[in-house]
Amino acid sequence: METKDVQIMEDIYAENDQVSEGIQQDLSARGIYAINVLGAPGAGKTTCLINIINRLPGITPYVIEGDIQSDIDTRRLNDLGIESVQINTNGACHLEGVQIQNMLPKLSLSKPGILFVENIGNLVCPAEFMIGEHMKILICTVTDGADKPYKYPLAFEKAAAVLLNKADLLPYVDFDRAYFTKGVQALNPDAPIFLVSGKTGEGFNEVCEWIKARL
Amino acid sequence: METKDVQIMEDIYAENDQVSEGIQQDLSARGIYAINVLGAPGAGKTTCLINIINRLPGITPYVIEGDIQSDIDTRRLNDLGIESVQINTNGACHLEGVQIQNMLPKLSLSKPGILFVENIGNLVCPAEFMIGEHMKILICTVTDGADKPYKYPLAFEKAAAVLLNKADLLPYVDFDRAYFTKGVQALNPDAPIFLVSGKTGEGFNEVCEWIKARL
Repeated sequence: METKDVQIMEDIYAENDQVSEGIQQDLSARGIYAINVLGAPGAGKTTCLINIINRLPGITPYVIEGDIQSDIDTRRLNDLGIESVQINTNGACHLEGVQIQNMLPKLSLSKPGILFVENIGNLVCPAEFMIGEHMKILICTVTDGADKPYKYPLAFEKAAAVLLNKADLLPYVDFDRAYFTKGVQALNPDAPIFLVSGKTGEGFNEVCEWIKARL
Repeated sequence: METKDVQIMEDIYAENDQVSEGIQQDLSARGIYAINVLGAPGAGKTTCLINIINRLPGITPYVIEGDIQSDIDTRRLNDLGIESVQINTNGACHLEGVQIQNMLPKLSLSKPGILFVENIGNLVCPAEFMIGEHMKILICTVTDGADKPYKYPLAFEKAAAVLLNKADLLPYVDFDRAYFTKGVQALNPDAPIFLVSGKTGEGFNEVCEWIKARL
């Protein structure tokens, strides 16, 4: 990149960090813990969220769904009685703080709880932008292969935990779990890796115990 | 985006289009047909390329591998005797024409053939940037779910064909093929959809017949 472009990117990051810190403080003051949910397209982010929310009774969930287009996931969540709103980026590949700031008035946020923000399905750009979260979690799958930490390191570096989804398909794929774990640990030794299945519910009790300990 | 930012993006696209047209003309003059291979992380892009290249005897293949980091895929291709070079974007989420221009001198390009460019694993940004290709193909998977055309329309709009990979896992997932097909056809009625399995080789003969007819 040229020097001019680098300066523009630095300005964008700095402005975004400032907005994000404001959101985080606002949410903290309301007793709301915010989780930025990252993952590639089709990783099963919404299904994982539903599994998590169902296992956290007594904790009020709020969801902001980020998608390039469509409100498929928001309708799915609202149909389950989960308060959710949709951001459509119309092409943009990640969410930024200002978009979350604009959506917060559309949620009741009437009780303490957890705000889940499902970011755009993309293992690259979303990891670069804070959006007011207290932590990021990353959802990967056994079907996407064990080399992802080596190819997309930033998302793994920034995640507080990694959910390895689609465990129900493990018998049918060649997934080298030791190689995956080694890759994650080299980037982020403190992040737990939870083997889960959005389809069967396997592993989500452990995820929820871990989330409750972080609140 | 602010007007200033829109202008910057328009300048970037215009400059990239110009470079890409130059690359395409250069490759055409050498009898080389260029295919820009798009797909989400873990869609099986490299495995599909190997399946295609193995079924096109007599056509010289060249590969440029795009990755944020690592040269896992390039080593895999070179080990199979396929002439391949690596671009590492070190964070950038897509390839641009100038990167391809810089890599071409590193390939022999001594005979007519096909240049496959495996773009960064990302269903969003790569679709926005030409890189000198004669056509794009998009690789999706049955494990990523049937809603992808609705959520990531641009990649589907721009692809000359869609490969629906991991067909071997169809018995184990809930994949609504009619919904997927409907979504693709609404965006891109002319694009064929090939059901393939990088693991078993299913479907690639049909893909290769179609590619040969395009050359």
